Amino acid sequence: MMIVLFTDFGADDIYVGQIHAVLAEQAPGITVIDLLHSAPAYDVVSSAYLLNALHTRFPPQSVFMTVVDPGVGGARAPLMVKADDRWFVAPDNGLLTGVIRNASKLTANKVLWTPPDMSPSFHGRDLFAPVAAMLASGVTPEHEVKAPVLLEWIASLNRIIYIDHFGNAITGIQADAISKQDRVSVGDCAIGYARVFSEKENGELFWYVNSIGLVEIAANQARAEEILDLHIGDSIRIVSA
Amino acid sequence: MMIVLFTDFGADDIYVGQIHAVLAEQAPGITVIDLLHSAPAYDVVSSAYLLNALHTRFPPQSVFMTVVDPGVGGARAPLMVKADDRWFVAPDNGLLTGVIRNASKLTANKVLWTPPDMSPSFHGRDLFAPVAAMLASGVTPEHEVKAPVLLEWIASLNRIIYIDHFGNAITGIQADAISKQDRVSVGDCAIGYARVFSEKENGELFWYVNSIGLVEIAANQARAEEILDLHIGDSIRIVSA
Amino acid sequence: MMIVLFTDFGADDIYVGQIHAVLAEQAPGITVIDLLHSAPAYDVVSSAYLLNALHTRFPPQSVFMTVVDPGVGGARAPLMVKADDRWFVAPDNGLLTGVIRNASKLTANKVLWTPPDMSPSFHGRDLFAPVAAMLASGVTPEHEVKAPVLLEWIASLNRIIYIDHFGNAITGIQADAISKQDRVSVGDCAIGYARVFSEKENGELFWYVNSIGLVEIAANQARAEEILDLHIGDSIRIVSA
Repeated sequence: MMIVLFTDFGADDIYVGQIHAVLAEQAPGITVIDLLHSAPAYDVVSSAYLLNALHTRFPPQSVFMTVVDPGVGGARAPLMVKADDRWFVAPDNGLLTGVIRNASKLTANKVLWTPPDMSPSFHGRDLFAPVAAMLASGVTPEHEVKAPVLLEWIASLNRIIYIDHFGNAITGIQADAISKQDRVSVGDCAIGYARVFSEKENGELFWYVNSIGLVEIAANQARAEEILDLHIGDSIRIVSA
Repeated sequence: MMIVLFTDFGADDIYVGQIHAVLAEQAPGITVIDLLHSAPAYDVVSSAYLLNALHTRFPPQSVFMTVVDPGVGGARAPLMVKADDRWFVAPDNGLLTGVIRNASKLTANKVLWTPPDMSPSFHGRDLFAPVAAMLASGVTPEHEVKAPVLLEWIASLNRIIYIDHFGNAITGIQADAISKQDRVSVGDCAIGYARVFSEKENGELFWYVNSIGLVEIAANQARAEEILDLHIGDSIRIVSA
Repeated sequence: MMIVLFTDFGADDIYVGQIHAVLAEQAPGITVIDLLHSAPAYDVVSSAYLLNALHTRFPPQSVFMTVVDPGVGGARAPLMVKADDRWFVAPDNGLLTGVIRNASKLTANKVLWTPPDMSPSFHGRDLFAPVAAMLASGVTPEHEVKAPVLLEWIASLNRIIYIDHFGNAITGIQADAISKQDRVSVGDCAIGYARVFSEKENGELFWYVNSIGLVEIAANQARAEEILDLHIGDSIRIVSA
């Protein structure tokens, strides 16, 4: 059993520590994993694809608290979803679309429980963390059935969804949607495949299937992001051989 | 019981891990919360206001290790303060001014205990962490009464004290020092109130009462810091309606 | 007993959380310390000197997982080394040179165990973390004796090996290789000694012996990195008095 955090709150900022304090008080003894706090800020679509690629490696019974929530304090509902034995607590804004689309077993509910004192802007701390703590402790908060908001979704997305601190650009393209003979094209540049970094000269660009099953654009010991001026949201074309 | 870390040591640097190792050895089994490691570097005044706004949410018996310490290795004393049942271990440079001013119960002491081997520049690891571990373990290090150094202090400070990774600027202005009809002025720009981000168009500036009770200048899905060229220390004016 | 992580994976990225999840599953109850995730990227030499300076403070029986691994997925072997009662799991690329050179007791082996499912690019998660979990749990993975790859090594290296988030530049120069009367020279600038930051005026440059026994170039409450345009890999000269 573990609580897994996936947010855009930033690892080195004032938010995550407050969430950890709530979880330590309300779910004592439960392991908390900081999976990601640099999810693309406000970007629900990119974050949904990234979460979809990351979550399947976690054990059943894991409780995910996933918060990329530009609508916090507005009309969007809080959601608790059970997908293939993993729990997800999230704003109902489409962030769970991939998780839901790929689940073979699913229950989705709106959370009705509310804390006695809730800030308008930090539901991560005040609402989602307590609900995650309850679920991890075997307590079911008050809820009602709700059809979750779903994004338009295609299994393999030809777009950059994340840039890591090495300057590598992760796309939404699934490994099985591309052949190793294909080139990946961004702007004017068509890039060939390599299995790993060390097959290329330093500074040379390539694409490869990364450790979460997605096509990634990289350069050996250099920043593909800077070489190609890449940004989250940029379109990618697959050029077949 | 938890040990709470508040420093300017940086979350992704060589310092915090060494502190965690000391705490794991000397206070085994005690939960350690990384509240903040990006406190404004060397800036005792801004950090004191930020700590003041953050600490009250933590449970009684929490032991805070708070280190923003430009005078490390010099004449300033190490301090251990009990304020309303929470412990604080800190350099005696005014960092605890807000904590002390707002405590209804207070004892303040200089720490006399010293470690067998202390570096001149990393008292966080060598002195403050072991003292925090002792206090969390119910051991009282050798000490003597001392009147702590206090900064000039006003309850509500018209100044930017922190900028978060979203580019939002947190001020020292308390929610009860301002009316929702007031505008907040920085440079040539006077900014109106919104309850939450989603009430505004993308890129539109506003101020709101943030989740730790302070006035914050933000823009919906954009960086207020860049739009207004804001910096920690900038003065803010409240323009009454 | 603790598992200590030293990598260039970045603290605020998608990698470290996945490693923590593996360790939580495979070595439950063992404390995991994030010593450093901003080791100089791809830079095995600088990282080796930094690891050498950092590791001696950790208790015997600690299990280090140290990964700076530009050759991941290529021919380099995975290594498990026991040096003075501490375990090290690492790529066999010279990263452990300092650890090995300074050990009085040493066993070095190639790891033969492989996971059922291993990505080509993230051995940190798929291979090194499971091996670290085994060693921390008292299980010895399959292995065979191997002479580890060693870098050219001098005890005290006149080069910048790390720049911290304050903008201080850590060199590979050992404290006992320099006199406090010496000046440290970088580019055109020769810099004198100070014991601690607060002995200098704000903005003034100095060198000092830092908390891990290395010469460090700093400026009081300012960024030496920016003042002197310093980079990892820059050469340093010691100018004797």
